[in-house]
Amino acid sequence: MTLPVAWTHPLPEPDMAFTERAREQQNQLTKPPGSLGRLENAAIALCGQQRRQTPSADRVHIAVFAGDHGVCEEGISAFPQAVTAQMIANFAGGGAAINVLAKQLGASLEVVNLGTVGEVPADLPGVVQAVIAPSTGNIAVEPAMTGRQLAEALSAGDQAAARAAEASADLLIAGDMGIGNTTAAAAIACALLDEAPETLVGAGTGLDPEAIKHKATVVGRALERHGKNRDPLAVLQSLGGFEIAAIAGAYLGAAARGIPVVVDGFIASAAALVAVRQQPALSAWMHFGHCSAEQGHRRVLAALDAEPLLDLGMRLGEGSGAATAVTLLRSACALHNQMASFADAGVSDGSDA
Amino acid sequence: MTLPVAWTHPLPEPDMAFTERAREQQNQLTKPPGSLGRLENAAIALCGQQRRQTPSADRVHIAVFAGDHGVCEEGISAFPQAVTAQMIANFAGGGAAINVLAKQLGASLEVVNLGTVGEVPADLPGVVQAVIAPSTGNIAVEPAMTGRQLAEALSAGDQAAARAAEASADLLIAGDMGIGNTTAAAAIACALLDEAPETLVGAGTGLDPEAIKHKATVVGRALERHGKNRDPLAVLQSLGGFEIAAIAGAYLGAAARGIPVVVDGFIASAAALVAVRQQPALSAWMHFGHCSAEQGHRRVLAALDAEPLLDLGMRLGEGSGAATAVTLLRSACALHNQMASFADAGVSDGSDA
Repeated sequence: MTLPVAWTHPLPEPDMAFTERAREQQNQLTKPPGSLGRLENAAIALCGQQRRQTPSADRVHIAVFAGDHGVCEEGISAFPQAVTAQMIANFAGGGAAINVLAKQLGASLEVVNLGTVGEVPADLPGVVQAVIAPSTGNIAVEPAMTGRQLAEALSAGDQAAARAAEASADLLIAGDMGIGNTTAAAAIACALLDEAPETLVGAGTGLDPEAIKHKATVVGRALERHGKNRDPLAVLQSLGGFEIAAIAGAYLGAAARGIPVVVDGFIASAAALVAVRQQPALSAWMHFGHCSAEQGHRRVLAALDAEPLLDLGMRLGEGSGAATAVTLLRSACALHNQMASFADAGVSDGSDA
Repeated sequence: MTLPVAWTHPLPEPDMAFTERAREQQNQLTKPPGSLGRLENAAIALCGQQRRQTPSADRVHIAVFAGDHGVCEEGISAFPQAVTAQMIANFAGGGAAINVLAKQLGASLEVVNLGTVGEVPADLPGVVQAVIAPSTGNIAVEPAMTGRQLAEALSAGDQAAARAAEASADLLIAGDMGIGNTTAAAAIACALLDEAPETLVGAGTGLDPEAIKHKATVVGRALERHGKNRDPLAVLQSLGGFEIAAIAGAYLGAAARGIPVVVDGFIASAAALVAVRQQPALSAWMHFGHCSAEQGHRRVLAALDAEPLLDLGMRLGEGSGAATAVTLLRSACALHNQMASFADAGVSDGSDA
């Protein structure tokens, strides 16, 4: 199995000289020190990541990875599996939430089709065809994918990061679409965090309590089959989701190319957890867009030591929470770059109070 | 004392027919029902408030009310009182946080000078001169203002709302500037909520624990002097900041003219509390921008039954938290107005699952 180099070679680190300089600059601006809260921290982090004195969140590349899940045959979703392919067409037609948010941001948006059970026309605009198989294996009874399929999925993510770099993106967002993928994400998170299914399995697109119980049982079967192996790549291959692997690949590919990422919700965070377990240095490149309403997300965020920017009860995926948070990063950058200093504005900095 | 009519006449109510229609529309969009969380609720509320099927947060009017506080002579702020006037000049020069955020939003921004101890040039661009007095009285020993001064402050806020209406604003934000105003806001909130100073007094622009203790003692003296009267106008006159009264006036003036407001942090929420106690129907016109890091804010938000959109540890005032949240309302509107329906996109709504 040939992995993208981002999985096996040391990642770059943000430039702490820029971070330090940005921190000093924040304390010169006409406001009580620290009073912009996490907007200050975000701007400071972006300075180090982008190696710039004037951070930017203007150019955003969004890649939505879509793929189907064999575990759907266990009846774990409120929506039929056909919706994955239907939503790819909806992305191509511009009607999904992520389309609207991408347009609002002026972001470039690509959809990467990793394989669906439903038919996807070959010529959909804005869709990168990177089909691995019609779906993953049913994780309750078999591995999600072969080693070769895993490498293909990681590579599909890495290539999206390469396109973001070509487009000189300031930020990368990786989104997900795949009916059944909260089941796969919960299984991955349970395996990596040694948690019980009941803790991390949630309602997904809208299951009732009885159906959530069934879903947890299915995740339990997958975990039993998988065993105790916590190697991130083994977990991904066994429990996976093509789109989850691709998102992990996109995150590491972005960091390897010096591009910070904004992590979305539960699915994206499960992918982030895999990628951070493989390469802990990835953490320094991540902003967290939001805390999802999906039950397991808080636990995964805690494991990532993440402080998400938003907590709006969103649970849609597609990168929608991360995209919604980008405007906050833009505010953070504008404030950092445009506010007057105490000296320039003739305002007392309080040292004479 | 002649009050603006918004203080004495019934407020209009949002149109529930638009609210209901908006709720139905949200359930037709290509996403699991409820999966956009509070963005859905915000869009639905805006439809009712704006009496439109396509809500908008495009046209935003921001009024920053500035005034000085006599209680500064008790030594309750980390910054010198001269900063209030200096910051008015900074607003006029475009260098403050709210300038940067207003520019990012394309919002109209006005600063209303209600009176400062430091000198403010008469001809500053973008500054409405509505001087009441150089400062309020020292609330530790005397009422903040006379009845006539209170009416003037309320009217200054009401007039800002009138200008927002003239500008066909979709939303109004009222911001604050006034060294010492967390002391006044804490005193107001304590009086209205029957809380102890220690519960609601915080660090303001950056006091250490010893200084916070002193500030709480000063608030305690003000409350003792004020007594048990919980009438909102009596509390405002006795304890309150010209800018706090003006913000309360702006909120009621906006609601009276059918304009929803986005409430900022601790100072603005204390003003909101006064206004809601006067006119409970105001609640239906309020969005809450953020939860401030200032200690008492959560308690005041709870009293207002408010769920703020952001919780970023901001504590700057000026309307900055509310302005930062406007982009979320814009996302909410864009999603509501532009997403495809299940039927139009040919996506299963799950009823055939």
